Amino acid sequence: MMTDLLDPPASLPPVQDAPAPSAARPPINRRLPAHPVVAIVGATGAVGIELIESLTARDFPVARLKLLASARSAGLRLPFRGREIVVEELTEDSFEGVDVAFFSAGATISRRFVPLAVKAGAVVVDNSSAFRMDPGVPLIVPEVNAPAMAAHEGIIANPNCVAAILTVALAPLAQAARIRRLNVATYQAASGAGAAAMEELRAATGAYLDGQPFTPKVLPHPYAFNFFSHNADVDPDTGYNGEEDKVVAETRRIMGRPDLPVGITCIRVPVLRAHGMAVNVEFDRPISLEEARQLIGVAPGLRLVDDRVGNHFPMPVEATGQEAVLVGRLREDLGDPSGRSLALFIVGDQLLKGAALNAVQIAETLLPR
Amino acid sequence: MMTDLLDPPASLPPVQDAPAPSAARPPINRRLPAHPVVAIVGATGAVGIELIESLTARDFPVARLKLLASARSAGLRLPFRGREIVVEELTEDSFEGVDVAFFSAGATISRRFVPLAVKAGAVVVDNSSAFRMDPGVPLIVPEVNAPAMAAHEGIIANPNCVAAILTVALAPLAQAARIRRLNVATYQAASGAGAAAMEELRAATGAYLDGQPFTPKVLPHPYAFNFFSHNADVDPDTGYNGEEDKVVAETRRIMGRPDLPVGITCIRVPVLRAHGMAVNVEFDRPISLEEARQLIGVAPGLRLVDDRVGNHFPMPVEATGQEAVLVGRLREDLGDPSGRSLALFIVGDQLLKGAALNAVQIAETLLPR
Repeated sequence: MMTDLLDPPASLPPVQDAPAPSAARPPINRRLPAHPVVAIVGATGAVGIELIESLTARDFPVARLKLLASARSAGLRLPFRGREIVVEELTEDSFEGVDVAFFSAGATISRRFVPLAVKAGAVVVDNSSAFRMDPGVPLIVPEVNAPAMAAHEGIIANPNCVAAILTVALAPLAQAARIRRLNVATYQAASGAGAAAMEELRAATGAYLDGQPFTPKVLPHPYAFNFFSHNADVDPDTGYNGEEDKVVAETRRIMGRPDLPVGITCIRVPVLRAHGMAVNVEFDRPISLEEARQLIGVAPGLRLVDDRVGNHFPMPVEATGQEAVLVGRLREDLGDPSGRSLALFIVGDQLLKGAALNAVQIAETLLPR
Repeated sequence: MMTDLLDPPASLPPVQDAPAPSAARPPINRRLPAHPVVAIVGATGAVGIELIESLTARDFPVARLKLLASARSAGLRLPFRGREIVVEELTEDSFEGVDVAFFSAGATISRRFVPLAVKAGAVVVDNSSAFRMDPGVPLIVPEVNAPAMAAHEGIIANPNCVAAILTVALAPLAQAARIRRLNVATYQAASGAGAAAMEELRAATGAYLDGQPFTPKVLPHPYAFNFFSHNADVDPDTGYNGEEDKVVAETRRIMGRPDLPVGITCIRVPVLRAHGMAVNVEFDRPISLEEARQLIGVAPGLRLVDDRVGNHFPMPVEATGQEAVLVGRLREDLGDPSGRSLALFIVGDQLLKGAALNAVQIAETLLPR
């Protein structure tokens, strides 16, 4: 599955915001050696752990793996391919000799250390939101817009988890017909708020079942058998929260549709690590269910789970740990009398396609053929 | 709060399907005595227990309470106003002397026993789906369409839980502007599938946390930290499940809008007894957020929970046990470029406004003034 996605298939959407390479800049290592030295920043976090797993699962040709984290986590040992690797403290000198660095330690760390990594010669795949809307930094879901990577200048941004899962699921439909309008209601897992939030969900639920009090520390609301509007700050003027703003902006950018109308409501539900979304898509022409099923059935990165008789559709217990994003509940959207809209339900592993897997797939496209 | 809603306020939607009283039929007791004899069929179920609670909470003037259930539950004792009432087996003779009977034992029981109760002189408030689409049976949410009750012939249907919570929340907006289109994604609790499903959610979650296997018996899919498409059977032709079909048909009927386009996706999430819904509403004119807030803020049965700065919006932990349906996350719907759509998030107690409370409110409107 290590496809070279830099060759744009004719059907991919046009690249709209990758800048022309600047002749005045120093040369950048735009591709990786056959066996790159790999660094993971934030190696002990929920996504960091999955990055190590994904490198193994996908047989990424790692020459050497460097695990970086805060001073607090330095000295921990994490398993990789049968050996243990000692976590080192992230410093300004951490990136010497590194070919590719995966950053997953939040936007503040990325803003400070990503430029140092690039200066040291590494290509950075950044999982934070720091550079996602920077016009000089491609924002990539390989199955959707790999051609936009061609002009990278050392940094490639990995999208918000909802945007990644949503756009990979919509890609085959968007190639068949132009999307006019999108509406999304999410069912988001604890993992999007990190390993501590996953542990808080377990602990809060255990306390509830034992009849014990529990005070949330990571998330702003009780999580046991409860759901709540996403914990990102809410814009007091628009009423949309930061998560929703990210999903809208990044979905538009990945799909090359800067003006696409997107309605969205982001809700955290008490599940551990798979995000769901109920989606309505209006196209510029009617797409039959048969056509939609065929498109989704053969699209890379997707699995059609759409058994009406067995009432078997995408759900977290089956998406967790899976590279494929599950797509199902394909129906005509009865809320649109024009007959040009479909409804579907999507579930993907937030830590895999929503984060670590997509980042490793980005790096794969930079390996020699 | 025992308002007499039979007097139609001028702003309520037109009654479209209540038939004219038939002069040929025998007279029906259309109203209740000041102190009615009350029966509850299905008294030991999740809704039955809440019916007893709601009669107490709302000071319903019960002369005598008769609790009816299957032979299996007969002999159990349930508390009511400081005394214990022995549950009796439901038989064909159970309704002698009963003024009002609440049915909550499923459509099969209702189809068989409701006609017997009416024949015995009782007014029936039926919580099952058996008669909801019968043109001779009003389907009532008192805050929305109480005038449609006037022509009842002994049976009044209590709506599906989602339809009740959704329509009471939309009522003030629908009175201010005509709704053109509706889209709903639900976050539904275990209680909709009964007390056994609530217990299964607790047990499955406890087993998961203990690392023990668990085989679901009540619901078709694992429920611990999982969500799944609603368990009602799916129409193999349309892809919509029975719950979605009910919500669409009943919402249209309650709102007096038989052709309203309604898009819907019903999902069960791991919460115990409050249903959520992310809703998009397109109106025939733009409604400002200020206007929407004012309308919802003064509407009967609703509580506006819309604190953007505190990131505090409707959620199950605050809706559970509450009569009011919580409405918040009011925003312009950015998925509709016309600017005529609002987005909102609604959470209501499935067992209260979604079932028992609404049934008791229906009976209240039949009491003498």
